[in-house]
Amino acid sequence: MPTIQDVARRAEVSPSTVSNVLNDRADRMRPETLARVQAAIRALRFRPSRLARQLKTGQTPLLGLLVPSIANPMYGAIAREVEAFAQDSHGHRVLIGSTERDPKREAQFIDDLLAHGVRHVIVISALADERHLEAAAADGMVVVSYDRRAAPGRPTGVHHVTPDNVAAAALATRHLIARGHRRLAFATMRGLTLSRGDKIEGFRAAAAEAGLRSGAHVLEAGPASDYGDSAIGQAARELAQRIAKSAQRPTGIVAVNDLLALELIAGLRGAGLSVPEDLSVVGIDGLYLGALGSPALTTVRLPVREMARAMVERAMGSPGDEAIDASGLVFGDMALVERGSVAPPPTLRRAR
Amino acid sequence: MPTIQDVARRAEVSPSTVSNVLNDRADRMRPETLARVQAAIRALRFRPSRLARQLKTGQTPLLGLLVPSIANPMYGAIAREVEAFAQDSHGHRVLIGSTERDPKREAQFIDDLLAHGVRHVIVISALADERHLEAAAADGMVVVSYDRRAAPGRPTGVHHVTPDNVAAAALATRHLIARGHRRLAFATMRGLTLSRGDKIEGFRAAAAEAGLRSGAHVLEAGPASDYGDSAIGQAARELAQRIAKSAQRPTGIVAVNDLLALELIAGLRGAGLSVPEDLSVVGIDGLYLGALGSPALTTVRLPVREMARAMVERAMGSPGDEAIDASGLVFGDMALVERGSVAPPPTLRRAR
Repeated sequence: MPTIQDVARRAEVSPSTVSNVLNDRADRMRPETLARVQAAIRALRFRPSRLARQLKTGQTPLLGLLVPSIANPMYGAIAREVEAFAQDSHGHRVLIGSTERDPKREAQFIDDLLAHGVRHVIVISALADERHLEAAAADGMVVVSYDRRAAPGRPTGVHHVTPDNVAAAALATRHLIARGHRRLAFATMRGLTLSRGDKIEGFRAAAAEAGLRSGAHVLEAGPASDYGDSAIGQAARELAQRIAKSAQRPTGIVAVNDLLALELIAGLRGAGLSVPEDLSVVGIDGLYLGALGSPALTTVRLPVREMARAMVERAMGSPGDEAIDASGLVFGDMALVERGSVAPPPTLRRAR
Repeated sequence: MPTIQDVARRAEVSPSTVSNVLNDRADRMRPETLARVQAAIRALRFRPSRLARQLKTGQTPLLGLLVPSIANPMYGAIAREVEAFAQDSHGHRVLIGSTERDPKREAQFIDDLLAHGVRHVIVISALADERHLEAAAADGMVVVSYDRRAAPGRPTGVHHVTPDNVAAAALATRHLIARGHRRLAFATMRGLTLSRGDKIEGFRAAAAEAGLRSGAHVLEAGPASDYGDSAIGQAARELAQRIAKSAQRPTGIVAVNDLLALELIAGLRGAGLSVPEDLSVVGIDGLYLGALGSPALTTVRLPVREMARAMVERAMGSPGDEAIDASGLVFGDMALVERGSVAPPPTLRRAR
């Protein structure tokens, strides 16, 4: 790629003369000099580097986005929306990183962003603590954390945007109860993140309000520490086996997300159980892929586009912007999408 | 974020003194000055910008990746592998862009990359021509184009990495023929890209070698110009309706990719047809999501990881590197994954 020196050499002027032309300071330049510099710029297809400008402002028009894995379709869907808003509304490109929920990878990515002059980052972390994010915020980065509530009464400098996970799980659970289910389970991967904890809370609350506390169980499975792409499948197979073998089998299952729900339906099929004939499954997310299967997945659709827009808006706000408080934005606007994976429990159907 | 000026002010030295410390040129500095600068760097948590270094080399440790849509799980899977190799083997982060196959978006993204000093880009374009990529290569960018063959005898400066799409479609087609299918169709979105053309060629060749040329048809559907995320679903619904209504219904269908195959199976179900009882469907890609449905999708698995590694290696090669020729790398190492969406045709099953 040609440099400003190459242009200067070709035009037989000094680099500072080229710089004056590039920065509209050519008013006292001789017209033939100006023409020579302009011809050299064209001939060499020279593009003035944005890096010089970035060095002055210390800002790079990039937005960092950390996700556990971009191969996961839910994070792909969020990334797509984040990218569209960052580009169309703020002229920022997205620098993406998959962390596999590994604290080291996450910390290293944030270091890299700081070193690149990137001041805006959206993090889907779900790590147990946010101290590394708080440190980045203290270094002047605007950090938006997805899928976590802000800790009450403890301002941290980190913005929080999250679906109302308590409400999402409660909505899914109430749907099963309304269809007649009395033996309920909440299925999740091992490892208690904040959002999983919230969903469990919503599941338990909905069961309790229907007087079903004793019939509502939380089932965890999967590897304890590996959060790679295969962890969900492994958890689903374990859960399906355990459910198939259990004496008091649940008839209605809320899965922590759509991907687990889809894997679980496949696993249950492998264990000789049919959904929704033998048991019903509800997911949480609203992936369009859930509509393709047989049965199509009944799920709680989260407002992905609206959350993505809010995350970009917050991430692009200046650090210390008083108009934006860091207390957190909770999106409660979600809808139950009824498809084919929920039916009345077998006992009720037989009684009819 | 603190600047070198902030450090200088706090240490009560000139910015060039700070610069000398940062660049290991402090050997003639008084020890107390050095200590004061180091203390100021620590106190302000100053991080020397990599931008300065980048200005000198004209290179940014970023790899650009253009995909039609990051929300598409096949591109998510490729992006995940590209990201892992770029990071682990070359210390490069990935700057991602969804183009929706829009030539303007694609050209603008490449302009942005050049202006950022990014010299390495992988493009999954499928646009009709590559002149914009050739122009970027002429500007000194190393460009790798995915899913296209290099035009024979015409070196362009653009590298090509592609699966052998002819072989992939032929493998899928031969599998249907081996299971007894005689009325075959190739289902695709409207708009002839190079890779679709290759798959059609493989489909036709496999049908011809079995003497089935007259029973093999190509079915196109979907919007003519809109390549957004919803185009595949729309195409699948149209195709399913057309197949359901056709007098001489095909019994074996090769879909241009897994996502269309999954949507098509759902669409056929909506039209009252069962897969594989009424007709069989084979996909191409090997998405893990295809394993989850009922029926699980029989598909041709492409070597995603190997292709991603090859793309990163080529993209990271220096421009003009003689050891790397731009003639193109075609990956023929693919496998038929037999799952549940293929069975003998209904006529054969009834005869048994």
